[in-house]
Amino acid sequence: MAKITPQKEDFSKWYLDIIARADLADYSAVKGCMIIKPYGFALWENIQRALDDRIKAKGVKNAYFPLFIPESFIKKEEEHVDGFAPELVTITHVGEKELGEKLYVRPTSETIMYDAYSNWIKSYRDLPLLVNQWANVVRWEKRTRPFLRTTEFLWQEGHTVHATEAEADEWTISCLEMYQDLDKEDLAIPVITGTKSEAEKFPGAKYTTTTEALAKDGKAIQAGTSHQLGQGFAKTFGIEFTDENEKQQLPWQTSWGLSTRIVGTLIVVHGDDGGLKIPPKIAPIQAVIVPIFRTPEEEELVRKECLKMEAELKEAGIRVELDDRTEKTPGFKFNEWELKGVPVRIEVGPRDLAKDEVVVARRDTGEKKSILLGKVASTVTFLMLDIQKNMYEKALEFQQKNTHEVFDYEKFKKIIKENPGFIKAGWCGDGDCEAKIQAETKATIRCLPFAYAGQAKGECIYCKKDATQIGLFAKAY
Amino acid sequence: MAKITPQKEDFSKWYLDIIARADLADYSAVKGCMIIKPYGFALWENIQRALDDRIKAKGVKNAYFPLFIPESFIKKEEEHVDGFAPELVTITHVGEKELGEKLYVRPTSETIMYDAYSNWIKSYRDLPLLVNQWANVVRWEKRTRPFLRTTEFLWQEGHTVHATEAEADEWTISCLEMYQDLDKEDLAIPVITGTKSEAEKFPGAKYTTTTEALAKDGKAIQAGTSHQLGQGFAKTFGIEFTDENEKQQLPWQTSWGLSTRIVGTLIVVHGDDGGLKIPPKIAPIQAVIVPIFRTPEEEELVRKECLKMEAELKEAGIRVELDDRTEKTPGFKFNEWELKGVPVRIEVGPRDLAKDEVVVARRDTGEKKSILLGKVASTVTFLMLDIQKNMYEKALEFQQKNTHEVFDYEKFKKIIKENPGFIKAGWCGDGDCEAKIQAETKATIRCLPFAYAGQAKGECIYCKKDATQIGLFAKAY
Repeated sequence: MAKITPQKEDFSKWYLDIIARADLADYSAVKGCMIIKPYGFALWENIQRALDDRIKAKGVKNAYFPLFIPESFIKKEEEHVDGFAPELVTITHVGEKELGEKLYVRPTSETIMYDAYSNWIKSYRDLPLLVNQWANVVRWEKRTRPFLRTTEFLWQEGHTVHATEAEADEWTISCLEMYQDLDKEDLAIPVITGTKSEAEKFPGAKYTTTTEALAKDGKAIQAGTSHQLGQGFAKTFGIEFTDENEKQQLPWQTSWGLSTRIVGTLIVVHGDDGGLKIPPKIAPIQAVIVPIFRTPEEEELVRKECLKMEAELKEAGIRVELDDRTEKTPGFKFNEWELKGVPVRIEVGPRDLAKDEVVVARRDTGEKKSILLGKVASTVTFLMLDIQKNMYEKALEFQQKNTHEVFDYEKFKKIIKENPGFIKAGWCGDGDCEAKIQAETKATIRCLPFAYAGQAKGECIYCKKDATQIGLFAKAY
Repeated sequence: MAKITPQKEDFSKWYLDIIARADLADYSAVKGCMIIKPYGFALWENIQRALDDRIKAKGVKNAYFPLFIPESFIKKEEEHVDGFAPELVTITHVGEKELGEKLYVRPTSETIMYDAYSNWIKSYRDLPLLVNQWANVVRWEKRTRPFLRTTEFLWQEGHTVHATEAEADEWTISCLEMYQDLDKEDLAIPVITGTKSEAEKFPGAKYTTTTEALAKDGKAIQAGTSHQLGQGFAKTFGIEFTDENEKQQLPWQTSWGLSTRIVGTLIVVHGDDGGLKIPPKIAPIQAVIVPIFRTPEEEELVRKECLKMEAELKEAGIRVELDDRTEKTPGFKFNEWELKGVPVRIEVGPRDLAKDEVVVARRDTGEKKSILLGKVASTVTFLMLDIQKNMYEKALEFQQKNTHEVFDYEKFKKIIKENPGFIKAGWCGDGDCEAKIQAETKATIRCLPFAYAGQAKGECIYCKKDATQIGLFAKAY
């Protein structure tokens, strides 16, 4: 089997190698649309389940809104339509018949949902309205890459309505914290949270908050975003409610989402030259058993032990697979499962079995250990926790090592060029400086971190005027 | 609250009343597309989960294919394109830019999936290929009704590839049996299974099998369908495999699906003039607690017991809701939860509490009983099983009572007109007779039941020639 391209040699090529070789996705006949293959989809399903449980625990209910949005709806919110217009897939005909009004395939569902909300909400008793949908959305992108940027993608979009601004603020943050928790606990991804600058916020939002992860190539990538929409959409779509004093009021809204892009995030945050690394909690296969034998007698013995072990691990709640393909060598299998990022591999051969042992290898550290047969289930159960924890710690270490506090623009440029990562730098708050930095270095403000709020001191990294905030700069996916 | 229209008065209006009043779905601004509201979606999610577990237990893996299908793909399979062409949503533009090749929004995914399959399948070792996807599909329908027939609907479509015809036959039937089992065990819906006639089979299939349920208005409605596709699609899309003897072979394929239409099926099979009736296994809310009180002292006492009971029922694994709205009367709540089809209602009032009792009402029979406080959890747990069983039995009784064996065409017409239901009648196998019966009575052959295979005797109900099969005729949704 050919080696995958090393990260240092060509990170983009490394990424595409992983997608293909770990069997995550395939290209389709439709430009920019990918096919999510079973292994990639199982990964998404596990993330989805973990997030859906959290969403429901917050009291949000799932629903489903139409794929198509009438032209008049999209055009109602000016900022919103400006943000999406060039990427809109347009429908004018059904069969040979022309439609009365053009339809668009949803790029996001604010407009179609809020039109319905305006009928559903009458009184303060109808608030808060907490609805989420899992859906496909389409934005026609020029340059696409599987998971990271595709024309069609899958996501959840939550859309809530609240009586007060304070409640909407609180909800916006609580959703961001939900993503941060999912990222940390299930995906083993440390993120920096903060607000987006005006230039980077969601079209139509009052403000946008974001979780930003750091990829192995030093670029930033989003892992969940939450918007406080203010009262703009409510005004445009006529959402009003009667308050406790019988007065008509405009409500406040939020929307928040996470997409299949998270699978790409997972790859670029954890992967290495051996392939994918999947944290145990969301791994489609948590442990793989590889039998090793030469003679038919050995095969019989080994197979018997493998089947027993498979049953034992299933019983212990481990998602285990016995790789009993006869046409592949153990070496090939080791390689393949490493590439697919399976957290634990169990090698079962006659020599170890003679000592009542098997070899257990962990994907995160590469470590191999002989384990007594009777201890396999407890060892693997322990490793699930330990690998999950270790992967988070390693990713956090990488993120911290690659976050630089910079006071000098020349140094800023040098870091972005030679050794990219997060750059913490003073900013005056002027969009012009932001735009110039981007033009000159390709780095943008990924967020204005909550953690640094109110800590601005010194000068703007670009214009040298007083800094009003600390920005987290990076090149981004 | 206004009464819902009685079934006998206007079944269609009854149906739409239920949809609106039980808060299952709403109309959208896009013609024929519905909004699935939280209560309706929770119902679908429970069905989805029950089916997805069964699909995975069969060794099938979920995947996701693009929403869009290139024109050239759809046109490749002649029968297939003829079946779908007038309903196809066509995309020619993105933003202001015209596309090189027209795209269609998938009406079903055979063509886009099988194009990919042709790359994925090389050898007999790649077979069987067992893939399923949960997706939205679009067929532009002229007359639509929420759930029963909508322009966009949600479904799962399974698509498998097998080395031999026998294996594909077996798989087709095993999927039909999976739907039959879901219908019976989870939805409490008895179905008749069989093959479709040539006129009614899926465009491009070798043969189609179906599960047919009987609605309260005597019309037939499908509850899951499974197609043996033969080798036609494989040939068209170039799917080939090398067999054990190194020879190139054409494989055999199947596809099988169940959609959000099943929610409509559930309504028309179980509902009555009081509203929806949901079988416990898939009920979003299995039991509702309604507090009854007049004075603040009573309120405190009742509320305390209600909260305790809610916790106890949750602990017992019951999906329970405590309806503590203060602006609604108990009578209003009784009505509403009956309308929403919640299997069990628990009425908690001070007079009963004084005797350490509460009243438990079951939705399926309307029966009310006083139960000791200490026995609420065990009673409700028992009722879940008993209501599930009773709903199936009642539906089966209805189906059997409304299935008529008919030998005379005049009688056939009279039944269809006056007291519709399933009609079991001899058929010569000629599509002409089938078409004429449909033209004259609106009844079609819902299936050629497996149960009656080989039992044909006597004459064709229409032409009086020898019957070769027994058809199950009915008017259909």
